[in-house]
Amino acid sequence: MSNKIRWGVLGGGGDSLIGVLHRVAASMFDAYQLTGAVFNPDHETSKAFARQIGIPTDRIYSDHHEMIRLEMQLPEDERIQVVSVLTPNFLHFPMAKQLLENGFSVICEKPMTMTYAEALELEAIHQKSGAVFALTHTYTGYPMVRQMKQMIAQGVIGEIQKVDVQYYQGWINPIIHDPQLRKTTWRLDPEKSGISCCMGDIGVHGYQMLEFVTGLEVKSILADLNHLYEDNQMDIDGTVLLRFDGAAKGVLRASQIATAEENNFSVAVYGKSGSLKWEQENPNYLYLLTEDKPLQTLKPGHSYNDKMSLDGTKLPPGHPEGIFDAMGNIYKGVAKAVRNQPYEAGEFPGMRDGVRGMHFIEEAVASHANGNVWTDL
Amino acid sequence: MSNKIRWGVLGGGGDSLIGVLHRVAASMFDAYQLTGAVFNPDHETSKAFARQIGIPTDRIYSDHHEMIRLEMQLPEDERIQVVSVLTPNFLHFPMAKQLLENGFSVICEKPMTMTYAEALELEAIHQKSGAVFALTHTYTGYPMVRQMKQMIAQGVIGEIQKVDVQYYQGWINPIIHDPQLRKTTWRLDPEKSGISCCMGDIGVHGYQMLEFVTGLEVKSILADLNHLYEDNQMDIDGTVLLRFDGAAKGVLRASQIATAEENNFSVAVYGKSGSLKWEQENPNYLYLLTEDKPLQTLKPGHSYNDKMSLDGTKLPPGHPEGIFDAMGNIYKGVAKAVRNQPYEAGEFPGMRDGVRGMHFIEEAVASHANGNVWTDL
Amino acid sequence: MSNKIRWGVLGGGGDSLIGVLHRVAASMFDAYQLTGAVFNPDHETSKAFARQIGIPTDRIYSDHHEMIRLEMQLPEDERIQVVSVLTPNFLHFPMAKQLLENGFSVICEKPMTMTYAEALELEAIHQKSGAVFALTHTYTGYPMVRQMKQMIAQGVIGEIQKVDVQYYQGWINPIIHDPQLRKTTWRLDPEKSGISCCMGDIGVHGYQMLEFVTGLEVKSILADLNHLYEDNQMDIDGTVLLRFDGAAKGVLRASQIATAEENNFSVAVYGKSGSLKWEQENPNYLYLLTEDKPLQTLKPGHSYNDKMSLDGTKLPPGHPEGIFDAMGNIYKGVAKAVRNQPYEAGEFPGMRDGVRGMHFIEEAVASHANGNVWTDL
Amino acid sequence: MSNKIRWGVLGGGGDSLIGVLHRVAASMFDAYQLTGAVFNPDHETSKAFARQIGIPTDRIYSDHHEMIRLEMQLPEDERIQVVSVLTPNFLHFPMAKQLLENGFSVICEKPMTMTYAEALELEAIHQKSGAVFALTHTYTGYPMVRQMKQMIAQGVIGEIQKVDVQYYQGWINPIIHDPQLRKTTWRLDPEKSGISCCMGDIGVHGYQMLEFVTGLEVKSILADLNHLYEDNQMDIDGTVLLRFDGAAKGVLRASQIATAEENNFSVAVYGKSGSLKWEQENPNYLYLLTEDKPLQTLKPGHSYNDKMSLDGTKLPPGHPEGIFDAMGNIYKGVAKAVRNQPYEAGEFPGMRDGVRGMHFIEEAVASHANGNVWTDL
Repeated sequence: MSNKIRWGVLGGGGDSLIGVLHRVAASMFDAYQLTGAVFNPDHETSKAFARQIGIPTDRIYSDHHEMIRLEMQLPEDERIQVVSVLTPNFLHFPMAKQLLENGFSVICEKPMTMTYAEALELEAIHQKSGAVFALTHTYTGYPMVRQMKQMIAQGVIGEIQKVDVQYYQGWINPIIHDPQLRKTTWRLDPEKSGISCCMGDIGVHGYQMLEFVTGLEVKSILADLNHLYEDNQMDIDGTVLLRFDGAAKGVLRASQIATAEENNFSVAVYGKSGSLKWEQENPNYLYLLTEDKPLQTLKPGHSYNDKMSLDGTKLPPGHPEGIFDAMGNIYKGVAKAVRNQPYEAGEFPGMRDGVRGMHFIEEAVASHANGNVWTDL
Repeated sequence: MSNKIRWGVLGGGGDSLIGVLHRVAASMFDAYQLTGAVFNPDHETSKAFARQIGIPTDRIYSDHHEMIRLEMQLPEDERIQVVSVLTPNFLHFPMAKQLLENGFSVICEKPMTMTYAEALELEAIHQKSGAVFALTHTYTGYPMVRQMKQMIAQGVIGEIQKVDVQYYQGWINPIIHDPQLRKTTWRLDPEKSGISCCMGDIGVHGYQMLEFVTGLEVKSILADLNHLYEDNQMDIDGTVLLRFDGAAKGVLRASQIATAEENNFSVAVYGKSGSLKWEQENPNYLYLLTEDKPLQTLKPGHSYNDKMSLDGTKLPPGHPEGIFDAMGNIYKGVAKAVRNQPYEAGEFPGMRDGVRGMHFIEEAVASHANGNVWTDL
Repeated sequence: MSNKIRWGVLGGGGDSLIGVLHRVAASMFDAYQLTGAVFNPDHETSKAFARQIGIPTDRIYSDHHEMIRLEMQLPEDERIQVVSVLTPNFLHFPMAKQLLENGFSVICEKPMTMTYAEALELEAIHQKSGAVFALTHTYTGYPMVRQMKQMIAQGVIGEIQKVDVQYYQGWINPIIHDPQLRKTTWRLDPEKSGISCCMGDIGVHGYQMLEFVTGLEVKSILADLNHLYEDNQMDIDGTVLLRFDGAAKGVLRASQIATAEENNFSVAVYGKSGSLKWEQENPNYLYLLTEDKPLQTLKPGHSYNDKMSLDGTKLPPGHPEGIFDAMGNIYKGVAKAVRNQPYEAGEFPGMRDGVRGMHFIEEAVASHANGNVWTDL
Repeated sequence: MSNKIRWGVLGGGGDSLIGVLHRVAASMFDAYQLTGAVFNPDHETSKAFARQIGIPTDRIYSDHHEMIRLEMQLPEDERIQVVSVLTPNFLHFPMAKQLLENGFSVICEKPMTMTYAEALELEAIHQKSGAVFALTHTYTGYPMVRQMKQMIAQGVIGEIQKVDVQYYQGWINPIIHDPQLRKTTWRLDPEKSGISCCMGDIGVHGYQMLEFVTGLEVKSILADLNHLYEDNQMDIDGTVLLRFDGAAKGVLRASQIATAEENNFSVAVYGKSGSLKWEQENPNYLYLLTEDKPLQTLKPGHSYNDKMSLDGTKLPPGHPEGIFDAMGNIYKGVAKAVRNQPYEAGEFPGMRDGVRGMHFIEEAVASHANGNVWTDL
């Protein structure tokens, strides 16, 4: 009998890229066994997919209600332990809620919920559950992001005085300029994707990242969003001014109309005695700037790296790892938590990240709607 | 007798870096003869410096009043034609004013004046004078900035939908954290450097650059500045939200406390059909992003370059030119204007750049002081 | 019952990095089921490792002889189909030989054999076997290496006139300068690692890569190797001049004493009408140089990418993939071959790469030993 | 009367790029006064050019014989002190010879002579003359090349064990494939450009650079050159193996058929305790690699820079300087020598660089012609 964690999946069947990402991540450290799933709302399709990827079909369920009900009837040491929620956005909350209420640990895709109110509700349920909850802000799994977090915590750059986050993509550009497409794209439909497109999808990654690496909490924001066309209900671009306790300030810029940008996500943190910069598209480099010293470029896998960074590096220096490996690191952290092994706070993002993220999204939209005014978080 | 332009200089003696920059720039295209100068308020020091750099001392004057008076007595074909104003900020306006009133062309260091009101006054004087006026926003002299301007004008990236400018330095960081130093540094003294430090010194470069390359005018701004310490009267960091006619938006970020950044000035312009990005610290690269095509990196000196870009490139591709060459290009453009030769609008920044720049600085400070509110330009 | 490929592994247990790399790669496309293994010469250790990574222990064998014998007794549709050979170098040949002789397909780590004679013998056995044989020159699995190969084949850069390959590492530097360490390191012991250290380990990667991307065969070589110390029997650095049919020439440089280089492997191919360059440490960029056109940087996942490149990209542009993904692509190609599905020649390196590689290593050593003279391949 | 150095120029008139480069360089530090010249073999053209660039025509001579004769008749304190030789290659030797014999200091463009024999002859003359002789290997004037030289001399990377130099251009590619052009291009005519094209023009830059930065002397070489076409008499590509005293080895690669490369000149030096790398196309970066420490990128103008590097930097960090500035630094060094001020050995290349360079070129050609055999230098 395997001592792997019994793992369930909701969604992620067929051509789903997110499904591939999670399956590969789960397999990376020999820790998870895909045990049960609802890959698709259609049960037959779901089973066919299970056969396609070589999974037994006996625990392929018709829906998550059935999954939870039948798994609960199994002895605890056969029952699925953790479930990844990879379904469309509006299903994250009800599924995660029901799973937590029944004691299953959850790995939830982003956004955690559709609203801040739901987020708060889920947080309360989670606190009672004793289960593990992880939110897949995948980028925090990169070794050099972890390194950045630890160096800032250790005071390498001193007190923070400025934070600058950018998340620029261009993918919505061909859609937004086509009147028909911009009406029919689910991302631009508030029913399906919530009140914000750009801030909800990528701005919140930037927000979570900056709080993750700095350890600071944003206290208030002022947002200027852009819809570009009047008949477009959702922001597709925006800049958010940030304030923290103390004198530090920041700015978060996100766009889906930064034409031909791919996934240009970067974070720069300026402290009293140095600065750190990281870019997602070249994730294996971390730049340390110090006054009147040479620029230092840190890479993964070295003895100078922090323990948590090294824990997320599988091969020696010079062998580039990527986004799949970052997700793998998050699964590795969750595995430790599920197994009650010791782990560090930053090994995977959790409920608090989700709650704060939903708050950010709602207040960014509110700040903009109210005429670009300061709004507390 | 030389057919070089007779050139005068006010300031820039001794160890002045700006003096070196202008002298080298003036010599680059064999167009200028340094004919007269006031290098220093002290006449003897001024003459000593003239001897040191191998200039005859007979037209080294005691002050700019004397220079103007005595030069006006010379026949027109012996008289200094253009004067570079390299003195401390508060002297730019009175010197430029008097020079223009007497028909001398002027190459003026930035900032053009101390206030917007002065800028408007100088503009009126210039309009009557018939003289050439250039403002040394040096960065516009880089071949790839010129290339960017021309490509945008030619519609290569289509209608502009987003503009992002960054100017990050860290030089004031060691000063700002020292209570004594931050009281005694001239840059932080409004009497000496005007109402703004960061926006006045580098933010305005970003502002001029974005209007230069896009050909757009900013219509309104919302600024959030940072003084970091209460006893510091001047901004040393800030973010400015930008609006244009139409739906395009922008953001300008500038800082002098971006610790250990050197002169990290960059501009990105996103259009409907492509994007262009340029970075001052690697000035010979211009990046063209187009949907689903390879990233293109344009460099100087190629047949694909625009005429104005090529006019600013002296050597074949692969021979890097730098900031001195950029300033040389501005002097080259001014030389054409002084000699009544044809030249293109972008070959040197002028009075309009100065007027708009001063307006920007004042309104950025006002927007911040009024609680980060939108302010028209 | 799973329709996954039944997969066996020899070696790769415990802390073996190569074991992790192959297991993750095999899991990436849901195509392989780890069915049987000899992880370690010690049977108990082997079984313990199986339990640790959650694999049933019933087909964990005491050695590869037993594995082959017992698997042959199983019905064909239960029998292991393909075996990965991850054991120390000197075991590659005997294990691969026996596997092929019994009709098992083989995924073999590099070097394929200890000698060229063995390589020829293995080639003959393979030809008779009808089985699939793959040699894990992992770097050829990168999407942009595949893109490079296809673009050269399509004539994008025209007839090749110059090839330049570099593989620089520094890892042996701290060993080589320590008289004790250099006597006790297995890599420097011909008994354990063959007649060459640098050429045998990394030079051969460069050699295979250049033949892979160009489609050319090297005709003769002249090698100058460096042992640095007289008591060191093995090359740890070297340069090899290359000749092809026709006027094209090339050079291959490899080093393990390029101090502090990590895994700096790059290949540049210059053709009559353009050039292509790729670097392993930034594997998602392919540079196309064309006369008097902007430099083009190709990235994975775009519609301009070749089919084989796209087949090796799992996520949209801007999500960096790395070395694990490259190995995954090789496993994906092998899966197609094992399942008799159509695939392209470049999807995985095979027997011919191994044979030519062993020939290269032996002749490089011979050319050097004979006084740096031209030697035919 | 000016205290500038009285400077003469031979060649460099009209559209000559090299003429521009030297004039700008000479003007950069206010040290030279262009006093006399032969810009063109035609006297009238020469004088017209003098007028065009604003130089008095009274000391524009009909040829260098006349220049030397008439200048010698002037009192020593009016006489030209140093002459830059910018004429076609075959004239460098006779002109430099005559100048040195008459006590003029010389700044000579590269190649110093047409043959090694001439180089030795010139060296002997120079030794007797007491004059200053500089050879414009311009790239050694870059601040970060100087920094590299000093760091190696100070032992920062320890004993050198490997040297790798690359100089790749593609400019001759469109010529070499056109049978007509390759017969009519002066660079490919031994009468006009000497026995080697690629090694003579750029290989020698690489050779001088590697001896400059390492302080080592190459002891023997083995060259493999490429003519690409049989009717082409001259090398246009080649690789040269290098040996030094001791166990260090090296390789020098140069090409003019590296299609679409611009001026891709780089040098990497690997020592026992670290490595240094520099690239001409991004000349303001110097990379220091040290085992298991972050990569360090050094830039100009910092307090960590060496004195000679700082002496070649005019502006604060972040203001890129380029090739004109590098040449300016060489002129600055020569000015010190001419004025008998103290200067360091590396401030400008001299006679010894020229002699060794000519030796290298001849022996590279010989090594190749003799079947790629080792040849002593």
